[in-house]
Amino acid sequence: MRYLQQIVIVAVLMQLLVSTWARTRFVREPSLVASSLWNEIEEIDNNESGSDHGVVDRSTFWPSKAKKAYHYGMEERRKKYLGEPVNFQGGHSLQGLWAMPGRHKTISMKRTTMSSPVIDRFDLFTIVFNIIISIIGGIVVNRLIPMLKEKFIKAQLWGYDLNKRNSKEIKVAESQGVIVAGIFLVLMFIMIAIVFSEHLHPESDFPNHKFVEYLAALLSICCMVLLGFADDVIDIRWNVKLWLPMIASLPLLLVYFANYHSTTIILPKPVRPYFGQQWNLGILYYVYMSMVAIFCTHAINILAGVNGLEVGQSVIIAGSVLIFNLIELQGICAEEHLFSLYFMIPLIACSIPLLIRNWCPAEVFVGDTYCYFAGMTFAVIGILGHFSKTMLLFFIPQIINFLLSVPQLFKFIPCPRHRLPKLDPALNKLNPSDVEFKKKDLKPLGWLMLRFFSLTKFIRYREYQNNDNETMINTTNFTIINSVLCWFGPLHEEKLSRILMLIQLVFGSLLTFFVRYYLVRFFYDS
Amino acid sequence: MRYLQQIVIVAVLMQLLVSTWARTRFVREPSLVASSLWNEIEEIDNNESGSDHGVVDRSTFWPSKAKKAYHYGMEERRKKYLGEPVNFQGGHSLQGLWAMPGRHKTISMKRTTMSSPVIDRFDLFTIVFNIIISIIGGIVVNRLIPMLKEKFIKAQLWGYDLNKRNSKEIKVAESQGVIVAGIFLVLMFIMIAIVFSEHLHPESDFPNHKFVEYLAALLSICCMVLLGFADDVIDIRWNVKLWLPMIASLPLLLVYFANYHSTTIILPKPVRPYFGQQWNLGILYYVYMSMVAIFCTHAINILAGVNGLEVGQSVIIAGSVLIFNLIELQGICAEEHLFSLYFMIPLIACSIPLLIRNWCPAEVFVGDTYCYFAGMTFAVIGILGHFSKTMLLFFIPQIINFLLSVPQLFKFIPCPRHRLPKLDPALNKLNPSDVEFKKKDLKPLGWLMLRFFSLTKFIRYREYQNNDNETMINTTNFTIINSVLCWFGPLHEEKLSRILMLIQLVFGSLLTFFVRYYLVRFFYDS
Repeated sequence: MRYLQQIVIVAVLMQLLVSTWARTRFVREPSLVASSLWNEIEEIDNNESGSDHGVVDRSTFWPSKAKKAYHYGMEERRKKYLGEPVNFQGGHSLQGLWAMPGRHKTISMKRTTMSSPVIDRFDLFTIVFNIIISIIGGIVVNRLIPMLKEKFIKAQLWGYDLNKRNSKEIKVAESQGVIVAGIFLVLMFIMIAIVFSEHLHPESDFPNHKFVEYLAALLSICCMVLLGFADDVIDIRWNVKLWLPMIASLPLLLVYFANYHSTTIILPKPVRPYFGQQWNLGILYYVYMSMVAIFCTHAINILAGVNGLEVGQSVIIAGSVLIFNLIELQGICAEEHLFSLYFMIPLIACSIPLLIRNWCPAEVFVGDTYCYFAGMTFAVIGILGHFSKTMLLFFIPQIINFLLSVPQLFKFIPCPRHRLPKLDPALNKLNPSDVEFKKKDLKPLGWLMLRFFSLTKFIRYREYQNNDNETMINTTNFTIINSVLCWFGPLHEEKLSRILMLIQLVFGSLLTFFVRYYLVRFFYDS
Repeated sequence: MRYLQQIVIVAVLMQLLVSTWARTRFVREPSLVASSLWNEIEEIDNNESGSDHGVVDRSTFWPSKAKKAYHYGMEERRKKYLGEPVNFQGGHSLQGLWAMPGRHKTISMKRTTMSSPVIDRFDLFTIVFNIIISIIGGIVVNRLIPMLKEKFIKAQLWGYDLNKRNSKEIKVAESQGVIVAGIFLVLMFIMIAIVFSEHLHPESDFPNHKFVEYLAALLSICCMVLLGFADDVIDIRWNVKLWLPMIASLPLLLVYFANYHSTTIILPKPVRPYFGQQWNLGILYYVYMSMVAIFCTHAINILAGVNGLEVGQSVIIAGSVLIFNLIELQGICAEEHLFSLYFMIPLIACSIPLLIRNWCPAEVFVGDTYCYFAGMTFAVIGILGHFSKTMLLFFIPQIINFLLSVPQLFKFIPCPRHRLPKLDPALNKLNPSDVEFKKKDLKPLGWLMLRFFSLTKFIRYREYQNNDNETMINTTNFTIINSVLCWFGPLHEEKLSRILMLIQLVFGSLLTFFVRYYLVRFFYDS
């Protein structure tokens, strides 16, 4: 609680400080209320009144002034994005709530420079603010985990660390992800208030179309945290877990429809002669986005089971997205990437303390809560930030792991309850776990998959005769973790984690940046 | 899962059915695309282009067509509320997603009838749809509770029913509210998609200002469910629990600011000569709304501890709000009351199965999850439905209970860990529980409170000499539950529940309707 209070107090103080500074620094000559612009709006308004047959505008939803401001808002936004001078200085009374610096700067660039920096002083302030509260949030998480650990164990939220010699001796607290997610949500609630504080004066247009994005994003994330935590506490059946993210992503899809509703994809150059320049996917695009939500939510959860792996990969993905956002912040989709940035900074800051405590040997476990939380956050950012394809590239190791898991997930090959590596107590190293079954039980498709992944070295299998003279197959389980153990022999758990992190870094991040900034030119026009 | 699938399938089927029916029934002569109206919009648009100095509108957020539709939307809304003819028949292609009946009716009423019914055919459809999925949701809850009960007990989410003779023998599953809340959230996600489905064609204006209300409401509720469930699993400190609802209500306040930002209250007639006709509360109004959120979230939780009480009072409040909404649906704030209706119907439908199983003798407990969930739902509805004052009237018993609890909550009088009634095993009836302390430890304010509540018959206290010849005070605990037991003598738990329900009904609901529809005329102009 003390920490929460600190966050709130720091937020309010910074808010007050900056707004005071902004008032003395930016709000000059308040009498010059951009009169010409207001007149224009007046004119539009008059025309409108004319067109609705003289009906007195009494019960309309927005008051007249707000409507004017709305018109004005669209102008301002357009001008901002075209690099036009923005001179609106009025409407900054302290009447409603406290005032904020707002967008009072004057950009004077040529109309033709579409790639002008669209991040203004206020956006920079919000980023700095975000960084500060994220750091505070991280510190809070760092303090809360050891404080609450015992409470979790008492509430039966604990597990044994199976990859250790003394595994059955120590109870390790589970579901610590809920602490991260809780603090993340608190930070984001404060962040929303800050981001939209520039519109907190009575004559401002409130950008509802932006606001819905934040709310829908947080709603989906919050639902997944709830689902994850409920799953940790009472095991939820896998088919419920599979489809709930889809329902939780419904608001996201609606927001996408409301704000963009473009479902047209531009095809890469090589296929254009055959399929045309672009395709309108229509409803299929929404199905695709739903699938992204489901995939991302579960992707992290199925590449798990080794100390530090779940948080480690999330932090690497989040870091990569952060770098990607920072690069793209100079581009024409700056607003979307700013949106993403606001989520990534607290995610990283709150995850790092958990990573430290979850790293081998794990002091705490993250639980499904963390996996769903991080996964859904990425999905949300990808969908609303308009880079779901790039986001999927960051998930390449997870995609490979998923494809590799398909034979076992869909029962082409028998799947044991757990596919975690096996500990060799003598060496204190991990071996790939395996599964045994009769060769005659294997269907042709299963056999094909076995052969394919064996040829591509992802698994190792051998045939032998059992006592009843039946041909048996013994194969390592179909996960990247076991594949790594096949490639590099028995490994200590920490070394395994490091290698998996390296794979994430190389095949998730570096490869993506290579594809996104180098390879892309061969497929799309710049 | 089967139930979820059923809900989704029924939703999609109904959607398709109604949209097919609507297309054959309402969408006549698609060539007559309300040409005059579009021309008007064209005109406005031309004027606008003229006024922004010929800047080519390329990077503006909404495409030109959407902007026109936006203008059109405002017209349509205004006309709808003024009872003007609405004739828009165009734009209903099945291109984007499937089509919906939309607002294709023609209301032809006099412009002067401000109280014309503003609920149209589509709204009626959504209400019917809401009722149907709510019933399905209720059935699902009814099936899920017995299915999941054992899982909750296994997850250490259980408690003893202290007011029973055999209390220590049976483990009763706790936190069943999370099932209700989960199904409620799923229903509301589907509901959102249905409510906004009329805007799911590419040329529609998407009413973001309405959409934010739903999202903010669900976000706040979802956060409180998470908090409640976390509180059930790992006890959270009371000061965290006290302030988190405030943070969770931040988006609500922003939505209120964005959509209404009126903070002016009209004063009742008797005080107008002294204080004026109206007051602009400014930021204080937001503080008030925050307080409403905090109060409602905790109000149900502090009037608890008897079988069926938490759900019972919630169902009565929800039912009263429902009736209030249905009455007001004919008024000028129909849209807000429709919004409230969408939440109340599933809340009641999902709560009733829980009430049946929580009624004396309780088969399951509801947990903090349910209390926070129901409380926050009421707070959200009150704030965004613009009847927070009426909502508080529905909470009269809770307010009295809170005021009665103040001396113990704020330690003017010693507060034991539990203030539940005491079971008399011989009679199997409940007696008021009590607390003993030395008279000399009592501060003057505490003494005053003790005397006041004793005179008003809410508590019973007596003084006596202990063995050390010190004057001791023995007083019943300061809760409505104990007060009822003071008034009516020892009662069986079920009878106590019934009386408390009656109090809720009389002092919560009937009194409110009396105040709201009769007494109000003496204080405000009609």
